[in-house]
Amino acid sequence: MKNIDHSAVRIRSGFWRQKQDLARSVTAKAVYDRFAETGRFAALKCQWKPGDEPEPHIFWDSDVAKWIEGVAYMLQEAPAPELYALARAAIDDIIASQEKDTGYYNCYYQTHEEPRFTARGNHELYCLGHLIEGAVAWYAATGERDFMDAMARYADYVEKCFKTEGTAAFVTPGHPELELALVRLAKATGERRYMELAKFFIDQHGSNPKESFSQQYPWARDEYNMDEMPLRQRTTVDGHCVRAFYLLSAVADIADEYGDKELADAARRCFANAVEQRMYITGGFGSTYIGEAFSGDYDLPNRTAYTETCAAIAMAFFARRMQKLELNSAHADVIERVLYNGILSGFSLDGKAFFYENPLEIDPDFNSVYTATKNPPHLPITQRLEVFTCSCCPPNVVRLLPAVADYAYGYADGTVYVHQYMDSTAAFDGVTLDVATNYPADGVVRIKANGAKKLALRIPGWCRSFTLDAPYVMENGYAVTDAVEVILTLDMPVTVMAANTRVHADAGRVAVMRGPIVYCMEGVDNNKEIFGLRLAADAVFEEEDAGICFAENAPCVPVLKTTVTRRVVPEGLYCTAAEVKTEEIPARFIPYFAFANRGATEMLVWVLEK
Amino acid sequence: MKNIDHSAVRIRSGFWRQKQDLARSVTAKAVYDRFAETGRFAALKCQWKPGDEPEPHIFWDSDVAKWIEGVAYMLQEAPAPELYALARAAIDDIIASQEKDTGYYNCYYQTHEEPRFTARGNHELYCLGHLIEGAVAWYAATGERDFMDAMARYADYVEKCFKTEGTAAFVTPGHPELELALVRLAKATGERRYMELAKFFIDQHGSNPKESFSQQYPWARDEYNMDEMPLRQRTTVDGHCVRAFYLLSAVADIADEYGDKELADAARRCFANAVEQRMYITGGFGSTYIGEAFSGDYDLPNRTAYTETCAAIAMAFFARRMQKLELNSAHADVIERVLYNGILSGFSLDGKAFFYENPLEIDPDFNSVYTATKNPPHLPITQRLEVFTCSCCPPNVVRLLPAVADYAYGYADGTVYVHQYMDSTAAFDGVTLDVATNYPADGVVRIKANGAKKLALRIPGWCRSFTLDAPYVMENGYAVTDAVEVILTLDMPVTVMAANTRVHADAGRVAVMRGPIVYCMEGVDNNKEIFGLRLAADAVFEEEDAGICFAENAPCVPVLKTTVTRRVVPEGLYCTAAEVKTEEIPARFIPYFAFANRGATEMLVWVLEK
Repeated sequence: MKNIDHSAVRIRSGFWRQKQDLARSVTAKAVYDRFAETGRFAALKCQWKPGDEPEPHIFWDSDVAKWIEGVAYMLQEAPAPELYALARAAIDDIIASQEKDTGYYNCYYQTHEEPRFTARGNHELYCLGHLIEGAVAWYAATGERDFMDAMARYADYVEKCFKTEGTAAFVTPGHPELELALVRLAKATGERRYMELAKFFIDQHGSNPKESFSQQYPWARDEYNMDEMPLRQRTTVDGHCVRAFYLLSAVADIADEYGDKELADAARRCFANAVEQRMYITGGFGSTYIGEAFSGDYDLPNRTAYTETCAAIAMAFFARRMQKLELNSAHADVIERVLYNGILSGFSLDGKAFFYENPLEIDPDFNSVYTATKNPPHLPITQRLEVFTCSCCPPNVVRLLPAVADYAYGYADGTVYVHQYMDSTAAFDGVTLDVATNYPADGVVRIKANGAKKLALRIPGWCRSFTLDAPYVMENGYAVTDAVEVILTLDMPVTVMAANTRVHADAGRVAVMRGPIVYCMEGVDNNKEIFGLRLAADAVFEEEDAGICFAENAPCVPVLKTTVTRRVVPEGLYCTAAEVKTEEIPARFIPYFAFANRGATEMLVWVLEK
Repeated sequence: MKNIDHSAVRIRSGFWRQKQDLARSVTAKAVYDRFAETGRFAALKCQWKPGDEPEPHIFWDSDVAKWIEGVAYMLQEAPAPELYALARAAIDDIIASQEKDTGYYNCYYQTHEEPRFTARGNHELYCLGHLIEGAVAWYAATGERDFMDAMARYADYVEKCFKTEGTAAFVTPGHPELELALVRLAKATGERRYMELAKFFIDQHGSNPKESFSQQYPWARDEYNMDEMPLRQRTTVDGHCVRAFYLLSAVADIADEYGDKELADAARRCFANAVEQRMYITGGFGSTYIGEAFSGDYDLPNRTAYTETCAAIAMAFFARRMQKLELNSAHADVIERVLYNGILSGFSLDGKAFFYENPLEIDPDFNSVYTATKNPPHLPITQRLEVFTCSCCPPNVVRLLPAVADYAYGYADGTVYVHQYMDSTAAFDGVTLDVATNYPADGVVRIKANGAKKLALRIPGWCRSFTLDAPYVMENGYAVTDAVEVILTLDMPVTVMAANTRVHADAGRVAVMRGPIVYCMEGVDNNKEIFGLRLAADAVFEEEDAGICFAENAPCVPVLKTTVTRRVVPEGLYCTAAEVKTEEIPARFIPYFAFANRGATEMLVWVLEK
């Protein structure tokens, strides 16, 4: 099965059209402005000198490159002259500043005395990876090949320094990203040597004790960058979540490209470990800010969840590749979970602000009680920001949204796979596809696939019952039918969820989902008291238009009203349980992704079970 | 009302006799041996030279001094020739090494080049405070006055440097302790100037911006040492818990001694804040290891509770002084809570090992999941240790236990106050007291007070019903009767407790108490699964002899058997609440203070409520 590229798909209306329009009309320029203000675009000219402010950061190139990639995807769909001009100017600066003889480009290293290719942790190859992704996307969108050719020259230089001649001081990227980018470059240019270079990095990763992270960085263990063993031996996903999923994306690519069963098995084991033991219900990954990392199986603390927006995005990249490698609706299930929850929560409803961390519980009062020290415990911030010092997440959202149709469809031998339900049209391989739906506002999907032989429709993991108006068989989680014009109805009641008892952080707690959307309570809707409220497993919910909570940009899914139990206790810290009284009060739940759009307030996904 | 000193009381049998015998027969020597092995006794001679190992630590004098104080209390009750000889030798070393002209003594400063009285945070005056307490206790126990006289000379030197001439680089102790010790020294010597010096420090504390902690230590805010305002203005207890309670002990002393209403009000406000907003149900204090400190009101996390053993002990010191300042059974209630829970948990059943931190939840599996970094999050250790680098807690236990009768009785105008129920005899002020009880194994107390006019018997805050076989009136939480031979029966059913809804860490949870004893579940008794088990508010408990859980040194209170609900969930991380099944299983609770005596295992005080 092949994944259908977003360029073959047009999202027509509904949930994702709203987000794409916002990204195009607001987010792209907002992120550009913040990056320009902070000097990221000016730095591309490589003219910084000691004493100048601001000083370029080691990963600034990647921020701009991801932004260019996002703009390219927007241009692919429709003209956007202002964005085109801004991106083109940035590309011109990069090409003009590239080292003439080698093709090397890095706005930090070219302006500093430090020798290149010596510090593995310094994001040098990571920046190149993003530049390549941006250049490949730019070529696909505009037909302008100069940026891709320029970055290919740099890739050739990397091949020489790291593979052919081995003059670099380390062997594999300290922040994976180049590996998957080289796969894209190989496919865009038709040059096999880039695929070989990607394979070289994958083969070498974890096989070079001399470049272990623990040797070089006093704070890191080798697990931080999954350096502790060769990738083919891995059974768990560990360390820095974004590093891990970027790396595993390339592992899946190379496994697919070379038919490498050992690599595929390793990728499968890591995917299963991530999803079955280490995933928040929101599709967030990363249980601790220490190393921005996984911790261990079933350790999923809510208030201190790290769950970086980029980690959820990186999981979407990885799962899409796993979906190509092996047909199993679990991959699209995870993609749906991260798209509607862990990724979108990183993005404000007004399109301008971002979360780096996406916790599942916030108590603003307690974020400020640590008064006796200047080193308070790390707690996620309570409001999204427009730019961060480490601003990887905003441009990752900019490139995710216009390409979100990447996840919708697959095709193999006349069968159209519908992985994600988006109101859209598509054309590929002689098929003309029309999918009409309000999903996820409701679960009714009308599909017409002219020119196809079969339809394979994912029945989401959250869905307990559905109807399809044609005969079908279930295969790998997909309802497969010979009909090519069907109506699928996915029943989408509000469902109270529980976690595995091994997840101690969620013990005694329940969460609310409706279709793929995880809900949460906010203090602003519930008199601040959310932490003591109890929800019955069989609670009845009423759906209300999201407009009653949110003015502009209200999400295209309902908010929920129900009844919860509140405890009334006597004064004093402790009392007997017999002295506790209860009362039933109304409560409201909103989509998790929409939290923190109305000022700093309490938030809770896993509420107490009655 | 005056507090009756332990020297006037003999604990006859039962709960505290067992602990005192253990302290005398095992703990005192065990702590001596660990301190000797680590060089703390050898260091007293002040002969360390650069290059020697081990190097004396800035607070080593205080460790030894507290041990001497504990041994003195033991000697006060009965001869112990070996302990006497060891303590006397240490005292001889201290006196011999004392600076001849000034009386100065510090095993660190006298062997290092650093100038004395320049670094406020360096525990210099703290060490003197403990030396004075040890010396006063030694004099009371043995009649040997040389140690007290020697330390009084040092106190005179401090008076000169800090008060009379002001040559020291700071004004008030950076770790309070000397203040309360000077009060004791004044009373033992009859020299008013030591009381005046204590008052000087109390008056000055928080009034000298130039010595603020935040100016001198990059990690600290002024709240760390309650330096941010003069003590008379305080409304909350803040910062390092042990510092806070040692300081407030002296505040209460000075308020009492000088009839200083402003100081008394400040002490009362701080006590109320500590007990009504910042106290764990175990009588633990300190919500965060960062600064070993209070955090804010109602922030009482269980797994990361700091709750240092010394902080609970320091609260006992403070509350005993508050009890003298103002008659209110709340003070003795807190003393009882800390004695039976937060202090005793710091001490192993075999008498040899100690906790510094006393968390209310332990999960050994998760203490070891943080693999990707060398800087894992701070989590309390799961097993007691025999000695720590910072070993303040072990000798604090050594001096607490033999003096525990300090908390039992008070006397005023012919009325005998019984604050704590211990099987004991006492003689003071013409009264001969006999209290016969198995408390807290049960709540029956037979009291005979020959020579008294009245009895005032504390009715504990935990007690919901009691009988007294004589007419009485309730005054300030005490049942006051003209009878001087009575039987008090405090009903002591197992009680399920709840926390105030403002304590979010305990939301949806209940705890078990029986009389003053807080209980917990351990994994070793409950198939490791304690975190998901649910206890009904109206659960029925059966009492069993503690011997079935503990071999030697089993506590003199029962363990508890009950039924809890266990959840059975399908495979996978998340399921619908409807898919969760439940079953009723037996469960056991043990006294909290006895946790972690059978190997590393799960522990939980606040269990999920059914």
